[in-house]
Amino acid sequence: MRLRNKPWAKELIAAHPAYILVRPETIKGHWQTRFETEQPLRIEIGSGKGQFIVEMAKALPQFNFIAVEVQEAAIAMILKKQVAAQLPNLQLLYANGADLGDYFAPDEVAQIYLNFSDPWPKTRHEKRRLTYQSFLRQYQTILQPQGKLAFKTDNLGLFEYSLVSLSQFGLILDFVSLDLHHDPRVTFNIETEYETKFATKGQPIYQLKAHFK
Amino acid sequence: MRLRNKPWAKELIAAHPAYILVRPETIKGHWQTRFETEQPLRIEIGSGKGQFIVEMAKALPQFNFIAVEVQEAAIAMILKKQVAAQLPNLQLLYANGADLGDYFAPDEVAQIYLNFSDPWPKTRHEKRRLTYQSFLRQYQTILQPQGKLAFKTDNLGLFEYSLVSLSQFGLILDFVSLDLHHDPRVTFNIETEYETKFATKGQPIYQLKAHFK
Repeated sequence: MRLRNKPWAKELIAAHPAYILVRPETIKGHWQTRFETEQPLRIEIGSGKGQFIVEMAKALPQFNFIAVEVQEAAIAMILKKQVAAQLPNLQLLYANGADLGDYFAPDEVAQIYLNFSDPWPKTRHEKRRLTYQSFLRQYQTILQPQGKLAFKTDNLGLFEYSLVSLSQFGLILDFVSLDLHHDPRVTFNIETEYETKFATKGQPIYQLKAHFK
Repeated sequence: MRLRNKPWAKELIAAHPAYILVRPETIKGHWQTRFETEQPLRIEIGSGKGQFIVEMAKALPQFNFIAVEVQEAAIAMILKKQVAAQLPNLQLLYANGADLGDYFAPDEVAQIYLNFSDPWPKTRHEKRRLTYQSFLRQYQTILQPQGKLAFKTDNLGLFEYSLVSLSQFGLILDFVSLDLHHDPRVTFNIETEYETKFATKGQPIYQLKAHFK
């Protein structure tokens, strides 16, 4: 969702070059140099206010995380969290998720998260869905062989679409939950802000995990 | 579900050899000779009381259909329907779905239907689920290349399991509905007896369509 402009965003971003890169031209292939430890890289496309990626970085210190977000007001809110937390395994990328190939080298990423992406329900907007084949092609390029994709949504239509789109593209499903918050198999789930709000209404959250061949 | 024994079943089955075969040893590879017209063959594994397969045979005369059912009481109820309807494109096979390879030759079948199969929810019973890999292997053998599998269930756990099991086996998803009876994309759906009863309670019916590579 679109957030209201934050008048303090620009200044905060400019003040913290160690935590955030703004449409960087030269980082491609060199992300590990931005982290304290060289370890597998997981990125979230469209991090919103950042609760998920910040909590993931805290919970899983054995991975490096990058929040990719195109909205200035949103990335600034993530940055605020990171300035407070100072996590050595979290970096922010203020850029468009549609340009992933400009910012990541082939095989640079181990796992991609998509959380509550815009469903774009109209058929004529199919190409904007983050599980459309042109996006999947980009993910495949920047992911290592057997690279993983994890996807959560509350949108039934987008989940149905994504299962088919991924399968047709050649991804293999490893896990599917049609009611994540009441699934006895699930022992670890970091929620996004939106997820927390939505799930309290009692409606199901869908999740899939898949890998490229 | 298990039906009560029908005292009239044996006699009815014996009286109609033109419509039903009982664990036939020699039909494999010759099913088309049992039909009026040679045309693509679609089979249902576990036809229950037969509403689905009988209505499908009526609605789609351009295909030949076979109801496979292991329960005598159930297959006798399907036979009763067929004796009344006398559909030239419907045959019954009284046999165990686990022995498909004994009754169908490689490439003999165009499409397989699984409807409201027993969910076998306990992990130790996974091998009994009709979407377990050993069953998928049998389906692949008797299906033509690119052969299709269509699956409906009201059981969330079985549907989650089946999506992953099919994908891991190498099938490609062509269609997924998480609420078949309220899905605006669906214009044609023949219901099973169980489906009609269940859907009136307002709970969702899940459907997937997939093909083998």
